[in-house]
Amino acid sequence: MGLLGGGQLARMIVLEGHRLGLEMHVYSENRMDPAALVSAFHHPGKMSDSAALEKFLHAVDVATFESEFVDGKQLKYLADKTVTPIRPDPLLMDSLQDRAEQKQLLVRYKIPTADFLPVNSPDDFARAQAYFKNEFVLKKRRFGYDGYGTFYSSKKQPLAYTPDQYGYIAEAKISFKRELATQLFRNAKGQIQVFPLVQTHQENSRCLWVKGPVRHPQLKALTAKLKNFMSKLNIEGTVAFELFDTGAKLLVNEIAPRVHNSGHYSLNALKCNQFEMHLRSLLQHSLPTPQLVAPGFAMWNLLGTGAGKMQLATHEDAHLHWYGKTKNTAGRKMGHLNVTAKSADLALKTARARRKDFSI
Amino acid sequence: MGLLGGGQLARMIVLEGHRLGLEMHVYSENRMDPAALVSAFHHPGKMSDSAALEKFLHAVDVATFESEFVDGKQLKYLADKTVTPIRPDPLLMDSLQDRAEQKQLLVRYKIPTADFLPVNSPDDFARAQAYFKNEFVLKKRRFGYDGYGTFYSSKKQPLAYTPDQYGYIAEAKISFKRELATQLFRNAKGQIQVFPLVQTHQENSRCLWVKGPVRHPQLKALTAKLKNFMSKLNIEGTVAFELFDTGAKLLVNEIAPRVHNSGHYSLNALKCNQFEMHLRSLLQHSLPTPQLVAPGFAMWNLLGTGAGKMQLATHEDAHLHWYGKTKNTAGRKMGHLNVTAKSADLALKTARARRKDFSI
Repeated sequence: MGLLGGGQLARMIVLEGHRLGLEMHVYSENRMDPAALVSAFHHPGKMSDSAALEKFLHAVDVATFESEFVDGKQLKYLADKTVTPIRPDPLLMDSLQDRAEQKQLLVRYKIPTADFLPVNSPDDFARAQAYFKNEFVLKKRRFGYDGYGTFYSSKKQPLAYTPDQYGYIAEAKISFKRELATQLFRNAKGQIQVFPLVQTHQENSRCLWVKGPVRHPQLKALTAKLKNFMSKLNIEGTVAFELFDTGAKLLVNEIAPRVHNSGHYSLNALKCNQFEMHLRSLLQHSLPTPQLVAPGFAMWNLLGTGAGKMQLATHEDAHLHWYGKTKNTAGRKMGHLNVTAKSADLALKTARARRKDFSI
Repeated sequence: MGLLGGGQLARMIVLEGHRLGLEMHVYSENRMDPAALVSAFHHPGKMSDSAALEKFLHAVDVATFESEFVDGKQLKYLADKTVTPIRPDPLLMDSLQDRAEQKQLLVRYKIPTADFLPVNSPDDFARAQAYFKNEFVLKKRRFGYDGYGTFYSSKKQPLAYTPDQYGYIAEAKISFKRELATQLFRNAKGQIQVFPLVQTHQENSRCLWVKGPVRHPQLKALTAKLKNFMSKLNIEGTVAFELFDTGAKLLVNEIAPRVHNSGHYSLNALKCNQFEMHLRSLLQHSLPTPQLVAPGFAMWNLLGTGAGKMQLATHEDAHLHWYGKTKNTAGRKMGHLNVTAKSADLALKTARARRKDFSI
């Protein structure tokens, strides 16, 4: 199994692969990358280096990726050339990388999402200003994440148009009560499994904690549509859906065709975690029905302080997952804590308390 | 953290170390050894190569071992020379390697065990024949395992004496109802935790399956003695106890100062598994109280067939742990299956059924 990328998501996939006895190969720039540290098989190279990527694909039977920030068209070309499947399909990833195409896919499969307009020119921008009465969110079509590439327009502070090589979309501002997330997994046999609905809490546009499971009256209807999406697009792998809960509605905000921070809780709260589910879905193995090991769970991201070594602690009631990153950069995801408990709120309370002992 | 040894026990310790963000270094002969495959840091060398071992100990902060078949006195010398602690204490391991010393330790700490006599000469052997009326088990003092180095004497087929460089012990034959096991963990702060009592089933002197938790009226009394043993010997790490259940009594059969096959169930049945418990106990971290995630559990060892590639399967209700061994040797431990269920027997039933799909 080949992993394109050396970050913490790749690391956790590699660790689960080891448990299953798979020979895990990592393609990343440095031997000290989090995923590279945990395998004998490291293939150094940049994501833009076609020759190195091709050599890597020849060395493995099947490959996957941890990030949507890779060149999907290039990967598809190399997968075809080397006859080494990359899953999920890099062209799907290429579509989802583009917020305009992603929104169009949501609309095509009748998945509720915030109203939007494409913005590829000053004229489009003027049209969006009028349509949304200046109250909208402008997002770069490509390469935005964690708030980067996202701009807010309001009547008081209207945005001005700045050209971008990939263009934008303008989205209606959504007044939501909370942010939620879920993940779906599908294998080549068409079997689909759905992870519990969870609440995600962002600070400074970055996920701080997750708790669950949570309920929503629209979940059943939405799940049917998400399953249809997975089937119609023949996805082999994981798709993470980030949602807005407006109270009455569940709107899909963003999709990522990969394992996701919002699913890290599954390492300790589910019998089969997202990383094993991802591998199973790529390898055409059966997908177990998700089963909670406790009624409630929470996950807390441990972020870098930017100064010196981080002081770690272990606790009896919190599971530590640490990514082995060599640099403690401020705000960087360095690890996470998982807690299971009698309820989601109790789990979150414990996670919040334990997080303090990490001196970060 | 340094691991002396490259087998599956070391592999599972390394994987847990990765989760905790420890930099895991493996000392073993080959890069393709199960534990070496799962880390960037491999130090090639034989267990008898003092110079290579010394270099390895300089490269790590603390080291542990996966097998009692190492030279405890040599390791103690090198640990002192390099000022790199090896835990548990190699001299304790050296004592426990010797069945005569192990039995003497059990007697000293009033831990019930089968009656025995040392046999280091033809005279000792004659004395044992008379004392046990020819009904006894003769065990080599050193380097016996899985039935190797164990011989049975009976009135019908009395053994003859063959000299062995390390000598033997003669033990009373125990008529037991079943074999059981448990593990204790102790850290330098003196905190001790006790794993559930489990039943172990051997075939051809090799563990085939484990189920639990099981009860025994003598468990409480025995546990107090085992805790005293851990404290008085100042053990930092894991000790696995293999037991005979005679119905009325619980007798300790063997002790191993390391993680153990009888504890593999803990990877899926306990909140904190034996490998993390072992690392915590070495690193002076707190030791969580063992908590079951389901009322019953079972573990089934997947043994090599000796022929060709093994056909693997994954199941929704059985967790696969595969060790990545490059040779499928008949009877070799290639992996294991863990199952949790409403009872130990239900878990075992599922494990037995799922095991068949591995074509071994």
